[in-house]
Amino acid sequence: MSVTAPKGFRAAGVAAGLKTDGGRDVAVVINDGPSRAAAGVFTRNRIKAAPVVWSQQVVKGGRVRATILNAGGANACTGSPGFQDTHATAEHVAEALADSAAEIAVCSTGLIGERLAMPQLLAGADAAIAEAARDGGLAAADAIRTTDSVAKIAFKRGEGYTIGGMAKGAGMLAPSMATMLSVVTTDADLTAEQCDRLLRATTARTFDRVDADGCTSTNDTVLLMASGAAGVTPDEEEFAALLTQVCDDLARQLIADAEGATKSIAIETVGAASEDDALTVSRAIARNSLFKCAIYGEDPNWGRVLGAVGTTDAAFEPDHLNVAINGVWICRGGAVGDDRSKVDLSPREVTVTVDLAAGSAAATVHTTDLTVAYVHENSAYST
Amino acid sequence: MSVTAPKGFRAAGVAAGLKTDGGRDVAVVINDGPSRAAAGVFTRNRIKAAPVVWSQQVVKGGRVRATILNAGGANACTGSPGFQDTHATAEHVAEALADSAAEIAVCSTGLIGERLAMPQLLAGADAAIAEAARDGGLAAADAIRTTDSVAKIAFKRGEGYTIGGMAKGAGMLAPSMATMLSVVTTDADLTAEQCDRLLRATTARTFDRVDADGCTSTNDTVLLMASGAAGVTPDEEEFAALLTQVCDDLARQLIADAEGATKSIAIETVGAASEDDALTVSRAIARNSLFKCAIYGEDPNWGRVLGAVGTTDAAFEPDHLNVAINGVWICRGGAVGDDRSKVDLSPREVTVTVDLAAGSAAATVHTTDLTVAYVHENSAYST
Repeated sequence: MSVTAPKGFRAAGVAAGLKTDGGRDVAVVINDGPSRAAAGVFTRNRIKAAPVVWSQQVVKGGRVRATILNAGGANACTGSPGFQDTHATAEHVAEALADSAAEIAVCSTGLIGERLAMPQLLAGADAAIAEAARDGGLAAADAIRTTDSVAKIAFKRGEGYTIGGMAKGAGMLAPSMATMLSVVTTDADLTAEQCDRLLRATTARTFDRVDADGCTSTNDTVLLMASGAAGVTPDEEEFAALLTQVCDDLARQLIADAEGATKSIAIETVGAASEDDALTVSRAIARNSLFKCAIYGEDPNWGRVLGAVGTTDAAFEPDHLNVAINGVWICRGGAVGDDRSKVDLSPREVTVTVDLAAGSAAATVHTTDLTVAYVHENSAYST
Repeated sequence: MSVTAPKGFRAAGVAAGLKTDGGRDVAVVINDGPSRAAAGVFTRNRIKAAPVVWSQQVVKGGRVRATILNAGGANACTGSPGFQDTHATAEHVAEALADSAAEIAVCSTGLIGERLAMPQLLAGADAAIAEAARDGGLAAADAIRTTDSVAKIAFKRGEGYTIGGMAKGAGMLAPSMATMLSVVTTDADLTAEQCDRLLRATTARTFDRVDADGCTSTNDTVLLMASGAAGVTPDEEEFAALLTQVCDDLARQLIADAEGATKSIAIETVGAASEDDALTVSRAIARNSLFKCAIYGEDPNWGRVLGAVGTTDAAFEPDHLNVAINGVWICRGGAVGDDRSKVDLSPREVTVTVDLAAGSAAATVHTTDLTVAYVHENSAYST
């Protein structure tokens, strides 16, 4: 169950020849209404791919009829010809749906700096629209994979409505937003303003707290499309909770499948003076190469954790810091604590807890280890 | 020629048993005057090792009689017992030299979080002081190595005076300051105020512009010790230029020997609205794991360069950016430029040039590639 779990949506994923391995590479998600309220959250990188620039304009109108997505090319750093390619793609899809290009969102992922193979992409769009069906959600999720080893999908049911979603992203995973594409759908009846508010609040606490390698991409996009087909106006608090669960589920799937990772690491900062402080500290650790190598080596190296904490401006006293790895408080009061040999780092799931002893706020960032396979994969990606 | 190239200095490096391989691990640099003006620049990490806290106090007095250095233990995150160890070391050296502990600087490097083996260290200090001689500079440089494969030394002659230096550091190399220890000596006659001013200005443009892995250590220290033994008050401008050459030479030796690196990468940002902007951009690229993996793979992946540039707040227009790798402008106007197959990435030395097209300021940061060997070395360091 993916983006087609909610009523009112059709989807498809087809092989259009953009990927060299012949796999699916073009997806479409069509909202048949009755509503088409929508919102989007995009990369904060100032180098924005053409489809990001386009889709930002589309969601400003608050309505999305369909989203066309492709792997096999990011259409980033392609100048105005690249933007014209995105525009032409939206026009092409709009014509096939007898609708307006101003309500067609576009997402692309793949290599930066190369033009898309437009004949293949447009033919793929035609094929995807022709195939789009109520059971097409999984094929769509499959088609947007790049180095993802598995398709990422999630869904949740609320009181009379459903939220579904798909995502891709395995490298360049960092805030602002994990580098990724995600489309989340619902058959609840929401206004565009609600979509925008709920999506921003949710991504800030889910996708924005995934940080595999500190590298922010040019193409990050999360779209929320609401069909209203369930005929239900949801309780906003319940909807927000379910949306958070769907996005959190997808975000964790991204980390679980991150390039070359052998560990999924949750970095909890507690006892912080503010949530911002907690986030800053968790992020600094998540981006510390030496710490990430240590976890790969199953070495509970709390010195590297403190080294990362010390680079931040969060409120803390160095000799009040406590650090636990997988529940063993190996650093107490800024110095050596419990026996490090008690730390079991053999499971894939690792939890690092940093207690700043400066307040009661907390935040968690999810990251991965830095591995030989990560280096291999990212030194050979485009060659 | 190292720290004993200038007159007035004796040094030694001895094996005290702190390193498990039996190599030299305790060094001393003694200033026999007539002057003992000195200054220091230290890590900006808020988690400061005991010897950093100690030596910061020492250099506030503007005078250093001797510096005692050890590898085989950082004495960081060791609480007040660790600080007492540093204090005891300074007292011990002061007693042997019949001098004041308030003028004995202490530097330590090695693992974080473990107490030093004090009996060995103090015995090593005695041996080093006994051996200290005018030709001991190289042995001292050898003794402060951790994962450094070679000793790093440099010297320059000015008008009637000499500047010499040694450094160590191969991992945790990042600003603020490359993670490192360095002692620079001169027989020129300088005031403590001059030492401080000249050292700060120089480190900001040399050691601070080395960034191997973005990880800032707890122990970074650069000391300048002036004996006045040459009886020459130098032209300050000439001295500053020579000091910069010595520190730049040492900084480049650090990058050339950085853990697991196969490439030494100079990241020049030109056409910037300000030097700060240029530095910010060069640093963002130097810290981008995906870019560093690409260079390891000899892949001139300019998209990853732009992806890093886009995360900064420097002044630029995305479609005015130009990027050259080893002199080939493969990105022009924010899009594909000259033929990437013309880029030869086989040499160890790599230059990435980013033209922001926003002004005339420039800055260069030196970094390394991210390699399989880096991950191996840093996943196994403490186990």
